[in-house]
Amino acid sequence: MRIAAIGYGGVGQAFVRLIYDKKSQLLAEGIDLKVIYVLGSKGGVYNLDGIDLKDLIDFSASNKYISSYPFGGSGDLSFEDIIKNKDVDMVVEMTPTNIETGQPGMYYIKTSLENGYNVVTANKGPILLAYHELQEIASRNNVQLGIGCTTGGALPTINGGIMDLAGSNIYSIEGILNGTTNYILQMMEEEGMEYDEALKKAQELGIAETDPTLDVEGWDTATKLLILTNVLMKEKKTLNDIKVEGITFLTAADVKKALDEGYKYKLIGRAKKVNGKVEMSVKVEKVGINNSLYNVDGKNKAVKYVSDTLGELTIIGGASGVTSAAASILRDIINIHRGYRFNR
Amino acid sequence: MRIAAIGYGGVGQAFVRLIYDKKSQLLAEGIDLKVIYVLGSKGGVYNLDGIDLKDLIDFSASNKYISSYPFGGSGDLSFEDIIKNKDVDMVVEMTPTNIETGQPGMYYIKTSLENGYNVVTANKGPILLAYHELQEIASRNNVQLGIGCTTGGALPTINGGIMDLAGSNIYSIEGILNGTTNYILQMMEEEGMEYDEALKKAQELGIAETDPTLDVEGWDTATKLLILTNVLMKEKKTLNDIKVEGITFLTAADVKKALDEGYKYKLIGRAKKVNGKVEMSVKVEKVGINNSLYNVDGKNKAVKYVSDTLGELTIIGGASGVTSAAASILRDIINIHRGYRFNR
Repeated sequence: MRIAAIGYGGVGQAFVRLIYDKKSQLLAEGIDLKVIYVLGSKGGVYNLDGIDLKDLIDFSASNKYISSYPFGGSGDLSFEDIIKNKDVDMVVEMTPTNIETGQPGMYYIKTSLENGYNVVTANKGPILLAYHELQEIASRNNVQLGIGCTTGGALPTINGGIMDLAGSNIYSIEGILNGTTNYILQMMEEEGMEYDEALKKAQELGIAETDPTLDVEGWDTATKLLILTNVLMKEKKTLNDIKVEGITFLTAADVKKALDEGYKYKLIGRAKKVNGKVEMSVKVEKVGINNSLYNVDGKNKAVKYVSDTLGELTIIGGASGVTSAAASILRDIINIHRGYRFNR
Repeated sequence: MRIAAIGYGGVGQAFVRLIYDKKSQLLAEGIDLKVIYVLGSKGGVYNLDGIDLKDLIDFSASNKYISSYPFGGSGDLSFEDIIKNKDVDMVVEMTPTNIETGQPGMYYIKTSLENGYNVVTANKGPILLAYHELQEIASRNNVQLGIGCTTGGALPTINGGIMDLAGSNIYSIEGILNGTTNYILQMMEEEGMEYDEALKKAQELGIAETDPTLDVEGWDTATKLLILTNVLMKEKKTLNDIKVEGITFLTAADVKKALDEGYKYKLIGRAKKVNGKVEMSVKVEKVGINNSLYNVDGKNKAVKYVSDTLGELTIIGGASGVTSAAASILRDIINIHRGYRFNR
């Protein structure tokens, strides 16, 4: 299988390293995976025989641009070359997310699918904005679009809904989908911290970003919930359909009081069919000890589905970080290699 | 897709009903699923155009043997006819489990695979005894063997390990795999019952069998753990490799004391790689409140995997009963229809 990797930031580098680390395991399953393109922000590397990934990793540890890599590096290499050369089976799209335009990922994904390449993406933007359209293009071109990484990384939210609940109808989706807020809430619970203090600690540890708005105001949860709802309930919702609320108003006293009553506050994304219509919200909810989401703490994430014939399914996990994001991309690649058709 | 259903007991009947109920949903996905054989313990029904499932269900509600069903029923119909006629795509095997010989399911599964039919089975016996051999036969004949129903029914233990952790290595498996013992333990916790009393209540409610030995002595958990270990860790273990202990020695006082200390007793099946070797046990363990298995109560089941690149994954759920068993069979059928190759 020949792959083009687009995007060589944190996830892209972790992906290249993972493919190198997993070489023998993949071969044992009959997957001879060659990365023949790695495209960075300025040019990239191309080697039809398969790039020497270990060597590229070493090179990029001390060189800013992979375009100067001596074996196939070029400042002129572009996405158009990948399309023109017609020598890959799959495009792995790992460019930065833009949830307003979806670009540049949207263009890469669409064009790749239209040209008959399978695509696995880590990019929420295009999926948020155009899942059904992209899936339709994939179907028309008889290729697959893997999106597992976009909603929880290692946590198999998409797999859970598509593969593990195959044949059932999902009535509701409920999830702790954002590790940063979950970590802040845990600090408020365990250390009695006020929100500002807990946020500061999360920022110091690199768990929260300098501008934490998207996480703490609930928008990251909302985007993931939206993708899950559109994919698994076959809806065509937008962010405007979700009532979104964050965690910033909570006080240490609120958290303490809830704990004393046997509850924890969790930022819950929820989509639920009510009289045939799907209602969606992101808000802080009190979760009791008998709820399977109660002890999903810290950076962990979880999703709970309720279905007609396969009952309740709770999935907890989702190691955070670029390596597990890369591993969730590889999961999609392997499942596509094993023949799975995600177009239902 | 033309299907032969073998076995018309509780699960077989629930399966036929489910296929009837899901007809339009399946058609919407492009699956025109026709059941053309239903084989009971004495003969069965055959209709190449697809049996009228609703009519058969109504008939069998008031008739002991489906062989007298007026539209295609015959006392002479046998498994050999299915093999000889070569007119199905898939055999769904739902005969009673025998964990010593695997028969009659072993013969049905093996012969079906050898003759080029996909097989989905609900039958632990053959998988317990001969998973690798059966998988090898499936591979050789380029067909699939679906076994999801054998280890937890609706709980996607096999899917979780194969699809949701694709590309990772599983270091350990830990599970609450038996609903009956979990229910008994909950009664002891919540009602302060002694073991005997809790067992009696479970029997009255139809949760425990008249002879509860396989459940309460840990053997049901052991068989499921064995299948998971052999399938997901590619081991070739037998029941003799597992240290098996049940729940019968626990007293209400033990359970109370643990609860006071913040623990619940759970019957845990565990397989763990230690210095490259897999160690297996089934025993009662104290589970603390921070463990994702803590609030898996009552008839619920759960499994927790620890993997190299995808971290920890806990799956909780598994609605019990014949309908959810049937739904887990349908899940395998659909995933096979979507192209998945379970042979890795």
